Amino acid sequence: MSKAIYPGSFDPVTNGHVNIIERAARIFDGVVVAVATNSQKTGMFDVGERMEMLKACVGSVPGVEVDSFEGLLVDYARRREATIVIRGLRAVSDFEYEFQMAHMNHQLHPMLETVFMVTGTTEFYISSQLVKEVARLGGSVDELVPAFVRAELKRKIDG
Amino acid sequence: MSKAIYPGSFDPVTNGHVNIIERAARIFDGVVVAVATNSQKTGMFDVGERMEMLKACVGSVPGVEVDSFEGLLVDYARRREATIVIRGLRAVSDFEYEFQMAHMNHQLHPMLETVFMVTGTTEFYISSQLVKEVARLGGSVDELVPAFVRAELKRKIDG
Amino acid sequence: MSKAIYPGSFDPVTNGHVNIIERAARIFDGVVVAVATNSQKTGMFDVGERMEMLKACVGSVPGVEVDSFEGLLVDYARRREATIVIRGLRAVSDFEYEFQMAHMNHQLHPMLETVFMVTGTTEFYISSQLVKEVARLGGSVDELVPAFVRAELKRKIDG
Amino acid sequence: MSKAIYPGSFDPVTNGHVNIIERAARIFDGVVVAVATNSQKTGMFDVGERMEMLKACVGSVPGVEVDSFEGLLVDYARRREATIVIRGLRAVSDFEYEFQMAHMNHQLHPMLETVFMVTGTTEFYISSQLVKEVARLGGSVDELVPAFVRAELKRKIDG
Amino acid sequence: MSKAIYPGSFDPVTNGHVNIIERAARIFDGVVVAVATNSQKTGMFDVGERMEMLKACVGSVPGVEVDSFEGLLVDYARRREATIVIRGLRAVSDFEYEFQMAHMNHQLHPMLETVFMVTGTTEFYISSQLVKEVARLGGSVDELVPAFVRAELKRKIDG
Amino acid sequence: MSKAIYPGSFDPVTNGHVNIIERAARIFDGVVVAVATNSQKTGMFDVGERMEMLKACVGSVPGVEVDSFEGLLVDYARRREATIVIRGLRAVSDFEYEFQMAHMNHQLHPMLETVFMVTGTTEFYISSQLVKEVARLGGSVDELVPAFVRAELKRKIDG
Repeated sequence: MSKAIYPGSFDPVTNGHVNIIERAARIFDGVVVAVATNSQKTGMFDVGERMEMLKACVGSVPGVEVDSFEGLLVDYARRREATIVIRGLRAVSDFEYEFQMAHMNHQLHPMLETVFMVTGTTEFYISSQLVKEVARLGGSVDELVPAFVRAELKRKIDG
Repeated sequence: MSKAIYPGSFDPVTNGHVNIIERAARIFDGVVVAVATNSQKTGMFDVGERMEMLKACVGSVPGVEVDSFEGLLVDYARRREATIVIRGLRAVSDFEYEFQMAHMNHQLHPMLETVFMVTGTTEFYISSQLVKEVARLGGSVDELVPAFVRAELKRKIDG
Repeated sequence: MSKAIYPGSFDPVTNGHVNIIERAARIFDGVVVAVATNSQKTGMFDVGERMEMLKACVGSVPGVEVDSFEGLLVDYARRREATIVIRGLRAVSDFEYEFQMAHMNHQLHPMLETVFMVTGTTEFYISSQLVKEVARLGGSVDELVPAFVRAELKRKIDG
Repeated sequence: MSKAIYPGSFDPVTNGHVNIIERAARIFDGVVVAVATNSQKTGMFDVGERMEMLKACVGSVPGVEVDSFEGLLVDYARRREATIVIRGLRAVSDFEYEFQMAHMNHQLHPMLETVFMVTGTTEFYISSQLVKEVARLGGSVDELVPAFVRAELKRKIDG
Repeated sequence: MSKAIYPGSFDPVTNGHVNIIERAARIFDGVVVAVATNSQKTGMFDVGERMEMLKACVGSVPGVEVDSFEGLLVDYARRREATIVIRGLRAVSDFEYEFQMAHMNHQLHPMLETVFMVTGTTEFYISSQLVKEVARLGGSVDELVPAFVRAELKRKIDG
Repeated sequence: MSKAIYPGSFDPVTNGHVNIIERAARIFDGVVVAVATNSQKTGMFDVGERMEMLKACVGSVPGVEVDSFEGLLVDYARRREATIVIRGLRAVSDFEYEFQMAHMNHQLHPMLETVFMVTGTTEFYISSQLVKEVARLGGSVDELVPAFVRAELKRKIDG
């Protein structure tokens, strides 16, 4: 049984994340999409809203579960008995940070393996940050996020 | 059943490869280490020798099988009914080429997923090319390759 | 008629920007240097001051106009009937972000083309951020910004 | 009149090249697609074949001309009275080499400006080299090159 | 007499820094480890605490001195009559920023040379930022920082 | 006494190399510029010619010696009782390879330290390879190499 965790902020989930989750679910027996709760960083959406959006977008994908966690990823992985961490890669700058984190996590938990997947060609330029900027400035995010997230962004910004 | 292929030249297998193979074998149900047979490129070792070295070094790791293939990786993956390709990443320059290959293979075989693993901290500077250069110039490769490969390198170079 | 927009913060304009603007003006029929007004980010200079400095430094270059805009760049480009966006590249890290933005803008406005120019060899290490740091710490910015900007920096910091 | 040169090997032209050429033709008054004739490097196709394929694929795009040149690009640009060089960027490694070449060409011909355009999202993983490898190994290049080139590749390889 | 400055935030000093300092001390006649005092950025530790930790960890290495400075590094180097700046490199993203800084400092002080050293293979993924994150979330930093720093981190966080 | 080796192909020496050598000579007590003799790779100039050019260009810089070596750099460093290797960095792609080599050399000879220096702003786009290409195609290399090398290139190419 290969159980994998796909951690992230998901503030909000984008088409790039959905692409990774759907493909990861075909590879691993179980994929836990885990919203990292970082008390220092406030997002546009709170953790409950992020989980709700994730459930709406990928909750029905077989083998996928949505959860949240506090503290170190390696400790969460131990509690969930997961042995794999999935990270999406879009660019070289992603890669450097991810490289560093993978080694740090390996040092803290030698049996936890990090695997990387590359985002699809039509999603690789999408980031949650960019999605929020475009939405705030009144641009269309139709090609960037699922319909459910689009509505939530609209609700939050028109607020 | 998640069957993964770890393709490469393995001319010769290094400690970096062994590190990836052992960790991949813990994640996936089966790992096929597949020597790519490229008639245009001649290596230091022929395909038979490369497979022999791989078998000596990782043949007894549970779930690991050593094989070779000709032609496109995607066609080999279809024949072997593997849905995952494993690639090791050491550096940014690796990443760019691998990124390109992952997208190309995805275009040729949309159900084949490429996952990347980063080499361990003590192996990341090792490449087959560098190993051969050091060995040819009389340097010690004790920390770079398994003992079996060390002997084969010596045999080949002292010839 | 090829009309191009060169958007940026220009807080303040540096010799690197001036180099790009002068060269862009030789290539395109018209170049609109456009200060991006981002209400969330406060700079050292306000938008009026930035435009004043730009006018003093490049206002007399044939074909160059100084302007400012709010909201999405693609919407501003539509209003100005510009079909080209110019971006300066200094380094790999620039490139990654610019790559992402170029694709995002292409998705939002498929007829808007982004072209990149590389900063001159003697300006490539200059950024507005670094200029402000050096000036604040009492270093000489004589080689980094036009004389007009030098005076404005002095006025602002000694102010 | 802004006349631009898009130099390259085009061995053979790919969908990525076609994407750049069509977009460049919308920006500049004239675009000369110029096959670099390098006597030291032999390709799969000779210069005549490469030009024939280019003419078949982009010859009817308004403002586009297909040509070839020997010697330094800067000298060819002077002869053609072109003031702009267009280069496509796909990745960081491209960028570094291109950066170096742009500065070298600027040193040799200060009035010649290099502008970079990024390949479209669905073409960025395509290179002539990869196309030839896939074709040689019997893979489908339908999504990678225009139909005319596909036929030429088939003829050359089955040949 | 080659006197070198190794400037940094050291908030706190890590095993990566210690590795660079010990190796630099073997190359240069004197190494001044200099805590940069930036009034705009508050760290976890104040400058006095950072210096105390540095003294405890590297104070007894022959040729090493611990100091702090305000203002421009180039001015501090002049005051200390140092002609060399040492910077540690871990990754490509480090490199770009360092490249820019080295050229800026060279422009401000042409006789000051920047030399780069690469962090050891077992320390290259360690940064002060990551150390603080791990410590705050209750993870073990035993392999990341000297014992003295470990105790200080515990004291600061348990507060 | 800090003795440093600056190894390279120097086929031929460029203004970029000269810039590094002159600056290194100010930092270290002695700098051995060492032409790497690689029997597998033939250059434009033979080892004797490369040394002659180096002597003409940097032979009179105080503390600089020109030499050549065969075999592993670490063995040569031991014979010369040098503890430092100097490498010039121009770009990210340089950096990656150099990073790998620095770690490999550290593994083979733990007391040998590699330090990196960045090429000056007006030389960073110059490489021996590019110099030869430009010279072969009849371009001016006046700004790229010392006058002595210019004459040698002319002699060799017109030869």
